[in-house]
Amino acid sequence: MNTKMIRNILLKLMAIEGVFLLIPMVVALAYGEESYKSFLIVAAGLIVTGLAFSHKRPENQTIYAKEGLFIVGIVWILWSFFGSIPFIISGIIQNPVDAFFEAVAGFTTTGASLLTEIDTLPKGILFWRSFTNWIGGMGVLVFVLAILPLANNRSMYLMKAEVPGPTVGKLVPKTMSTAKILYAIYIVLTLLQTVLLMAGGMSGYDSILHAFATAGTGGFSTRDLSIAAYDSAYIDGVITVFMIIFSVNFNLFYLVVIRKASQAVRSEELRVFLGIIGASILLIIINSYHIFPSLMTALRYVSFQVASIISTTGFATAPFNHWPYFSQTILLLLMILGACAGSTGGGIKIARVVILCKSIKRELKRMVKPRSVSVIKMDGKVVEEETVQGVHVYMLVYVAILFLSILLIGINGFDVTTNISSVITCLNNIGPALGDIAGPVGNYSSFSEFSKLVLILDMLIGRLEIFPIILLVMPSLWKRKSI
Amino acid sequence: MNTKMIRNILLKLMAIEGVFLLIPMVVALAYGEESYKSFLIVAAGLIVTGLAFSHKRPENQTIYAKEGLFIVGIVWILWSFFGSIPFIISGIIQNPVDAFFEAVAGFTTTGASLLTEIDTLPKGILFWRSFTNWIGGMGVLVFVLAILPLANNRSMYLMKAEVPGPTVGKLVPKTMSTAKILYAIYIVLTLLQTVLLMAGGMSGYDSILHAFATAGTGGFSTRDLSIAAYDSAYIDGVITVFMIIFSVNFNLFYLVVIRKASQAVRSEELRVFLGIIGASILLIIINSYHIFPSLMTALRYVSFQVASIISTTGFATAPFNHWPYFSQTILLLLMILGACAGSTGGGIKIARVVILCKSIKRELKRMVKPRSVSVIKMDGKVVEEETVQGVHVYMLVYVAILFLSILLIGINGFDVTTNISSVITCLNNIGPALGDIAGPVGNYSSFSEFSKLVLILDMLIGRLEIFPIILLVMPSLWKRKSI
Repeated sequence: MNTKMIRNILLKLMAIEGVFLLIPMVVALAYGEESYKSFLIVAAGLIVTGLAFSHKRPENQTIYAKEGLFIVGIVWILWSFFGSIPFIISGIIQNPVDAFFEAVAGFTTTGASLLTEIDTLPKGILFWRSFTNWIGGMGVLVFVLAILPLANNRSMYLMKAEVPGPTVGKLVPKTMSTAKILYAIYIVLTLLQTVLLMAGGMSGYDSILHAFATAGTGGFSTRDLSIAAYDSAYIDGVITVFMIIFSVNFNLFYLVVIRKASQAVRSEELRVFLGIIGASILLIIINSYHIFPSLMTALRYVSFQVASIISTTGFATAPFNHWPYFSQTILLLLMILGACAGSTGGGIKIARVVILCKSIKRELKRMVKPRSVSVIKMDGKVVEEETVQGVHVYMLVYVAILFLSILLIGINGFDVTTNISSVITCLNNIGPALGDIAGPVGNYSSFSEFSKLVLILDMLIGRLEIFPIILLVMPSLWKRKSI
Repeated sequence: MNTKMIRNILLKLMAIEGVFLLIPMVVALAYGEESYKSFLIVAAGLIVTGLAFSHKRPENQTIYAKEGLFIVGIVWILWSFFGSIPFIISGIIQNPVDAFFEAVAGFTTTGASLLTEIDTLPKGILFWRSFTNWIGGMGVLVFVLAILPLANNRSMYLMKAEVPGPTVGKLVPKTMSTAKILYAIYIVLTLLQTVLLMAGGMSGYDSILHAFATAGTGGFSTRDLSIAAYDSAYIDGVITVFMIIFSVNFNLFYLVVIRKASQAVRSEELRVFLGIIGASILLIIINSYHIFPSLMTALRYVSFQVASIISTTGFATAPFNHWPYFSQTILLLLMILGACAGSTGGGIKIARVVILCKSIKRELKRMVKPRSVSVIKMDGKVVEEETVQGVHVYMLVYVAILFLSILLIGINGFDVTTNISSVITCLNNIGPALGDIAGPVGNYSSFSEFSKLVLILDMLIGRLEIFPIILLVMPSLWKRKSI
């Protein structure tokens, strides 16, 4: 491992977080809040330390995929760590574990919260909280579309076969330009949503923060009641549409930008994704229309909730933990599926599910025709066997982590539904669970410290496609001389 | 497909069921019960039809693995179908779907029941019900130890690498002698348990029936309260030990018979199995000792329940659905693990879990050392890559079926815990679920017809290692000319 280069990059990334922290500081100052100091202290510390120790670049600047994964794993933890300090200094969250939980929930775009009475919090603090969703979403985009393809690892590498567009570049300059295009799309869409929300009567401040949380598919709100607080069909509609937009593979937007929209529309993952959304909305409405005053109301609330869950955003407009159990079951399964690969959304990803289904179908065919040879295709292109095996391993490790986490969360003594759904919702970076404890109107404050640490780990594991975090927590794997 | 030979074999197997049905008929006669007629009618019908149309063997007697899997899938359904008729004729169960459910629960050794007030049922009917557990267990032994290895299919084939003993025979004579040895061990152990139960004061009738249900890891009892009805530490102990014995790979008993016990003891699967049992008992006692009057009582009830669940028997001595949630979570995870491969138990099987864990560990190593080549070993022998990939596919199909079933059961409108655990308990051939509806003292009578059909399919799928039933319900796969 090129430790000097790793340290150099990490220090620079810390300085960048410092710069980000200046923005909520300005917001706090604009609203005349004392909390600006807490941002100033952390920002100054990060910028000074970061720049002071990183200005001299090491001679050997070569880093490999392994170092890249290592940096990604570390940086999400460090950003969350330093990002949690303003919560503590400002006195909003006293317990350091709680502050860390809130920051991890932000940067991993999970949006699981420990805070109550959000409406009364200082504007600067709330801004920072939602801003972490947005930064996290941006980071994830670069991670899955620019860094992962370089890693070329069979278990994480999902992109090559099914994703068109600018991601296959192996050179740093190409990665840089990829990142720039992605950022531009991300920023333009966030601004568009902000404007549309303001047009619906939401305040500028709330509009920006909800656009942040939607763009990152994070789901932190500025209100205790989440989006339900606005009680507006228009706002619900705008957010529903944007939650779906941000959970689509960003390479498809790139195709639209370069005027190849017809190619984007043909994406198999996109079609399956929209199909699942449509079918889920239909099934839930059939199962639960009787609890809504009209079919239109049902459509509004159900489509919002389906979009919120499958995009792994986690906003709420309705107490879906009290909907009929069949509807809850569908939502639970959607939680696991998650969004499209290459989006800011979490979960297993539709592309993996599609590859898995095709692989199972092929296996069944092989059973009756053992000598048959067939390849799996996505968007008309052959998916390499390495990728298929990688998807298998990914899913199995995912299930293993799910089981282990459910067992560990079980120590809390909460009911089985809460145990299972809180792990699923954190591992897939959604936010609200089923049950009353951590449901859409509940929060995670009643979980034990140990459980919070397990959920923190789950959020990080889910966000970074499992393996970077496992590598970090299994030092025996990377400490060896031979690596 | 050699349809003539398939029909011939199926007819003979029907005649065999007819012979089996004569035994409960004798029991009914001995107790002077009217229900003997219902057995006589079905037995006579099966024996006459079976023999009449199967005495002329077809010229082409060659059958392949595909035909074998087809026969296995069909025979479990046919045996359950004809085995359910006595329940209907005798008037014990009026609804044909319910009668079929009860028979499938018997032959698949699940032991999930729809009956209430079992204590008052005719002796002949109760005998038949428990006897189906025993026949099912015997059938499974032959299926997994003698037929499956012949199939040589990478997704089902688990035995070659890790199982010593007489199973690798590819010739019919060898399969026959294998089957004979297995039957002998099975019968001797059943008799031994019967004697030990009688020594504890259980009536001869109850002892035989409970030995049947233990041997098949089925779990049908003669009492509404299951084993709790006897309230005897000795009986609990005997059944605990035998539940564990019957969930051990029968090849290990064969090793003991040929005086290679030391080799049997070294079995990796056995050690992991016993380790999981020990650890689960310890964790549950730590979590729940406060609900028991003494540590010894806790040990008695907890070890019984752990053995009952991991062996997939499903007997109950305590309302474990009201134990602390952490203990319930452990039991839920044990349900999925299941027993050892090559036993009468169900579930995913410890051997698969061990191979999976080793495969995941190898994958993590590959991540940091991409060029490293390593093989997976069980009991010091190399597990072929085909087998490892087969385990992956098996687990993924398993999870897919689990999800789909949970979704379909969800239509019932029961709580999420009941939905998840009833599917798990049926798919793994255990019996009781968590929650109150289908818990250890509940039953499946409140489930809808549709749900019962889903659970019937799950029981069959779980019992026959998934693929034979999938092949049956996907006729497009086997109907093609080219097969």
